[in-house]
Amino acid sequence: MSELFTVPARKGRAARLTKGQAIKIINTHGSQVCDTWAFSAEDLKEFLSVEHMRPTLGSIYPKKGQPLHTNRRRPILVLEEDTSPGIHDTLIAACDDYRYGLLGCKEYHDNCTDNLMAGMRQIGLTPPEVPSPVNLWMNIPVGADGATQWGEPVSKPGDYVVLRAAMDCIVAMSACPQDILPINGKQGVIHDVHYQILG
Amino acid sequence: MSELFTVPARKGRAARLTKGQAIKIINTHGSQVCDTWAFSAEDLKEFLSVEHMRPTLGSIYPKKGQPLHTNRRRPILVLEEDTSPGIHDTLIAACDDYRYGLLGCKEYHDNCTDNLMAGMRQIGLTPPEVPSPVNLWMNIPVGADGATQWGEPVSKPGDYVVLRAAMDCIVAMSACPQDILPINGKQGVIHDVHYQILG
Repeated sequence: MSELFTVPARKGRAARLTKGQAIKIINTHGSQVCDTWAFSAEDLKEFLSVEHMRPTLGSIYPKKGQPLHTNRRRPILVLEEDTSPGIHDTLIAACDDYRYGLLGCKEYHDNCTDNLMAGMRQIGLTPPEVPSPVNLWMNIPVGADGATQWGEPVSKPGDYVVLRAAMDCIVAMSACPQDILPINGKQGVIHDVHYQILG
Repeated sequence: MSELFTVPARKGRAARLTKGQAIKIINTHGSQVCDTWAFSAEDLKEFLSVEHMRPTLGSIYPKKGQPLHTNRRRPILVLEEDTSPGIHDTLIAACDDYRYGLLGCKEYHDNCTDNLMAGMRQIGLTPPEVPSPVNLWMNIPVGADGATQWGEPVSKPGDYVVLRAAMDCIVAMSACPQDILPINGKQGVIHDVHYQILG
C-alpha cells in the first residue's frame, strides 16, 4: 500500500514523478477542488498548458484515458482513471491575492497561486510562471452564449483520479481555499486532499 | 483620419497605446482571425490574461463594453466597440511550430507565437512569456459536454473592434496563418488585418 500524503486544506504540495509512475489524487471529502499543475523535470519552462491541451483534445477539459499536453504540445500526464463524473475545469485561473481583494477581502487570504509557489519551494523549485491549472472537480458550466457559472462539485467522497506521468515531471496541487464562492460546496468548508504515488 | 496600418497576412505587429488612447482593429476581409495580446508598458510581466479575465467577466469571451483583465486582475483594455456579432475566442493557445508539426507540416509554418515575438521585437521589446491570446473573430463553439468545434468566423468584411487602453500598454496582433483548419474560413486564405490608433 503506497503511503498516503496530505495536501492540507487551503495549502499546496508538490511531488516528483518519474515517467511511468502515477499520482492518485483523492477527493477524500468529495467537495474539494484541487488546482493541479505539472512541470517537466528536465525544464520547468515546459508545463501542462490547458490552452495548448484544448485544441489537441477538442474539449475544454480532459476525459478519462486522455493525455494532458504541455506548452510544447507533448503529453506530460495521462488521465488514466477518474471515478468521478468527470467534470473538471480548465477555464479559471488559480485564485490569488488580487482575486480575493476583488471579492472584498481586506486581509491576506490563502490562495492557489501562492500555494503553487510554496509547494514547489518545499521541494527546492521555483516555477518560471504560474500556468492556468487543471482544476480537478471544479464545476464551471458554460452556456451557449459563453456565460460561465460557479457550480458545486459533482464528485462524491473518495472519488479519485490517477494521473500517469508521460515524462519525468513535478505535479503540484493546491486544496483550493476559495470559501466565498460555492465552488467547494455551498458551505464553503475547505478540506484536505490526499494523494499517493503509484509505481 | 488616423493612419491605417497593416498587419500583413501571416505576420505580427505591435503598437504602443497610452492610457485613454484606443486601437481600432479591422477585419478588412471579414474572415480573418487576429490573435491579440496586451502588455502593461510599465511591466511586461503584467499582461492581458484570459484565464484571469473569465472569472471576473463570468464569460469565456468579452462582450462590447466589457473590460479585459490582466494577470493582476486589472483592466488593461476595454472592448468599447464591436461591429461584429461578437463571437471571439479565448480557449485556444496561439498556434506554434509544435502545433503545425502535429497537423502534419514537415517544414516551418508561420505561426502566431513567433509573430508575437517578432511584432514585439520590432518595437524593441521581448515578452516574458506567451500568454494565451484573445483570438478576435475566432469561432470556437463549446458543447454542453465541453467539446469544442473549429467554426468559421461569423464576422463580415469591414467589421472592427475598438479597444480602449485602461493603462499605458502595448497591443500585439497576429493575422493568424492557420490555413489547415477552417478557422479563417473554409478556403484557408489568410488575409491582412488593419488597425488605426485613435486619440
